[in-house]
Amino acid sequence: MADTKILLTESEIPTHWLNLMPDLPGEPAPPLNPGTMEPAGPEDLSPIFPMGLIQQEVSADPEIEIPDEVREIYKLWRPTPMYRAHRFERDLDTPAHIYYKYEGTSPAGSHKPNTAVPQAWYNREEGVRKLATETGAGQWGSALAFACRLMDMECEVFMVGSSYDQKPYRRSMMQTWGATVHRSPSSETQAGRAQAEHPTGSLGIAISEAVEIAAGDDATNYALGSVLNHVLLHQTVVGAECVAQLEKAGEYPDVVVGCVGGGSNFGGITAPFVRANLREGKRTRFVAAEPAACPTLTRGVYRYDFGDTMGMTPLMPMYTLGHDFVPPPMHAGGLRYHGDAPLVCGLVRAGVVEARAYRQNETFEAAVRFARAEGIIPAPEPAHAIRAVIEEADAAREAGEERVILVNLCGHGHFDLAAYDAYFAGSLEDPEFSEAEMQAALERLPETPALA
Amino acid sequence: MADTKILLTESEIPTHWLNLMPDLPGEPAPPLNPGTMEPAGPEDLSPIFPMGLIQQEVSADPEIEIPDEVREIYKLWRPTPMYRAHRFERDLDTPAHIYYKYEGTSPAGSHKPNTAVPQAWYNREEGVRKLATETGAGQWGSALAFACRLMDMECEVFMVGSSYDQKPYRRSMMQTWGATVHRSPSSETQAGRAQAEHPTGSLGIAISEAVEIAAGDDATNYALGSVLNHVLLHQTVVGAECVAQLEKAGEYPDVVVGCVGGGSNFGGITAPFVRANLREGKRTRFVAAEPAACPTLTRGVYRYDFGDTMGMTPLMPMYTLGHDFVPPPMHAGGLRYHGDAPLVCGLVRAGVVEARAYRQNETFEAAVRFARAEGIIPAPEPAHAIRAVIEEADAAREAGEERVILVNLCGHGHFDLAAYDAYFAGSLEDPEFSEAEMQAALERLPETPALA
Repeated sequence: MADTKILLTESEIPTHWLNLMPDLPGEPAPPLNPGTMEPAGPEDLSPIFPMGLIQQEVSADPEIEIPDEVREIYKLWRPTPMYRAHRFERDLDTPAHIYYKYEGTSPAGSHKPNTAVPQAWYNREEGVRKLATETGAGQWGSALAFACRLMDMECEVFMVGSSYDQKPYRRSMMQTWGATVHRSPSSETQAGRAQAEHPTGSLGIAISEAVEIAAGDDATNYALGSVLNHVLLHQTVVGAECVAQLEKAGEYPDVVVGCVGGGSNFGGITAPFVRANLREGKRTRFVAAEPAACPTLTRGVYRYDFGDTMGMTPLMPMYTLGHDFVPPPMHAGGLRYHGDAPLVCGLVRAGVVEARAYRQNETFEAAVRFARAEGIIPAPEPAHAIRAVIEEADAAREAGEERVILVNLCGHGHFDLAAYDAYFAGSLEDPEFSEAEMQAALERLPETPALA
Repeated sequence: MADTKILLTESEIPTHWLNLMPDLPGEPAPPLNPGTMEPAGPEDLSPIFPMGLIQQEVSADPEIEIPDEVREIYKLWRPTPMYRAHRFERDLDTPAHIYYKYEGTSPAGSHKPNTAVPQAWYNREEGVRKLATETGAGQWGSALAFACRLMDMECEVFMVGSSYDQKPYRRSMMQTWGATVHRSPSSETQAGRAQAEHPTGSLGIAISEAVEIAAGDDATNYALGSVLNHVLLHQTVVGAECVAQLEKAGEYPDVVVGCVGGGSNFGGITAPFVRANLREGKRTRFVAAEPAACPTLTRGVYRYDFGDTMGMTPLMPMYTLGHDFVPPPMHAGGLRYHGDAPLVCGLVRAGVVEARAYRQNETFEAAVRFARAEGIIPAPEPAHAIRAVIEEADAAREAGEERVILVNLCGHGHFDLAAYDAYFAGSLEDPEFSEAEMQAALERLPETPALA
């Protein structure tokens, strides 16, 4: 039988990140200054980000070199393994070849350290001593705590209330790496105190809190785990490794699948394949899987919106449910975000990426089926992607085609087993998305230039 | 810089397990039938074990071939990575070269699936439909649940009460893989009902419960996660991979370190190096790290004792605290066992292996130091081994020698973060070992032949 795992050596860790921004058709719509609604320049970002990252945010270079020290740290968990899902294929009775890239082998348990480490590095290079951030499911906060520890920096994390309550061990993990963790909304910030009526919190609120902390102290910066161009840039190490691994297997993907909250794991794994479509005429399909309770790509509108709930960050062109829309609590905390990465939204807008929304119970059904075949228990976020893989595998069987499916299994579910408990007990909800609440949130948005 | 990880390909998964029994000096003391106190034969084990495993238990073959299907399943996580602990070495300011073999990459999160999978396989080959077992920290129960799922068998787990309460997510994990889990002592068995006065439970009580279930049903067998020869045999895949990995690094260990509860991870990683000492005159040292609250190797007596609390299993020659000694609750649940593998005990007795006992707080101090250097958060059990590594690294610095230290990091601590919380809060106890309780337990033992 063919190998189960396709491994790379440390010398095969990519030397460059892949910047997909110059590949997008047309001129990119610039971010807007939240005060003036005029195009935002690097100076608008400099209070909370270092210049090294701001340059990456606006770069038109097709590739950006990875600093040596970052590559050295990547060796703690990279290259990550790619698996051929032999057992899952048999269980699904599909002719499809299913490959999953497993990012759960990082110490923090997800793909997030791929960007946490370089973000900490660029900040430290410019004299920043502390990073503040938000975390949803806890994956990002864990990753930044880990990265700051390796860089000898301080780390302060605002954790979305519902996740803080559901996942106390994510907090313990961050503390083990030396970070300070607050339940958001917290009493530490004006933004938190103003949102006390939303006790479950949201990513948007937590972002506002962390940004406020960073803006108020010169030696403290902010770090975001998704959405921004430089974050998706760093995650392209995932896609670059997949290219090399599939080459070793003698395959090329017919479809690449990932879950989308802010878009970083999806943007990371798809980047080189999207470029091959746009530049080399490849015909890979791309499927973005999101929760039906927070259906940004499938139900949101494409327009300018703030990155955070309070309206402090620049406005970005994206699909959005409205920056102060508060999605219902659910276990895939990392997917509870009102917007999505402008880069991913641009690809959806251009018809390059197809989005699908799934309900909570059907994603856990898919995750359990996967765990019982392959062993690994997925986090609730990539469970959405697994759900889409099952659909693709079924479609391959119906078409009688040996399609190659690549999916980003971006993290394990070791801190999400309470959700599995609820699923088995039949008490897992399928929270409803409120179209009316979205419309109300959209009506509260400021007027902004129309997007093409 | 030298590579961080030393990886093997799937074709380098060992083809044979290494049986150390024929290497031990002198005739092995046979197990005794618990009814007659006469040497026990294969027929004494057949009510609860399949012949395939019984043959391995008493085999004098130096090597035993691994079945193809087992090797195929091993590919889901094997070969496991070996890491050079560059950052930990720098933090310890030691000239030692520290290598850790990381078994936490298995879906169950520890080395336990190395034996769970072949145990399930040999049982299924002989028509057994269900396995019953105990679990302490939950590592073994998770591993057997995972293995039974892959073999389409049922699995029933008795989980030590204190761990069941501390680690609810270990239970969820077992249920995700389809197992039934009981809190031990349970009301399901006579053994459990008889021990209701020990609500925190112990490995010995849980073993008795599982053995009772297996003995009462022809299609159900028992599976033990440690102690027995065939379990240590299966774990030698760990040591065999280490030999190949250290060869790639151009190194040979001066000292090999592991924690010891029942002895399986320690027996597994040390086996080929012990053989090289005995057959080729190598001079590697072996350090077995155990908890001061359950100090079997450092404080117990060497004599025949039962494997379980109720006295249902054959008696084995080992260091023991008395089979009905109940160790105090602690977070390293996998190390709360009154005895130790006869094979490991024999090596301690012969002066080949040195044992050391550590208190709970000093092991967590070591684990946090390791996590902050290397990222991976160790389970409390291998934290004991990390503590011993720090001592060895200090000794190397004092001697000014570039010693090579190999340690088995046999599992991650993702389900043990409550213990880390307690450590940071300063509320972690250093439970006392009671010499008097041990003496009382030893006085309750039946008379048995003296051991040489």
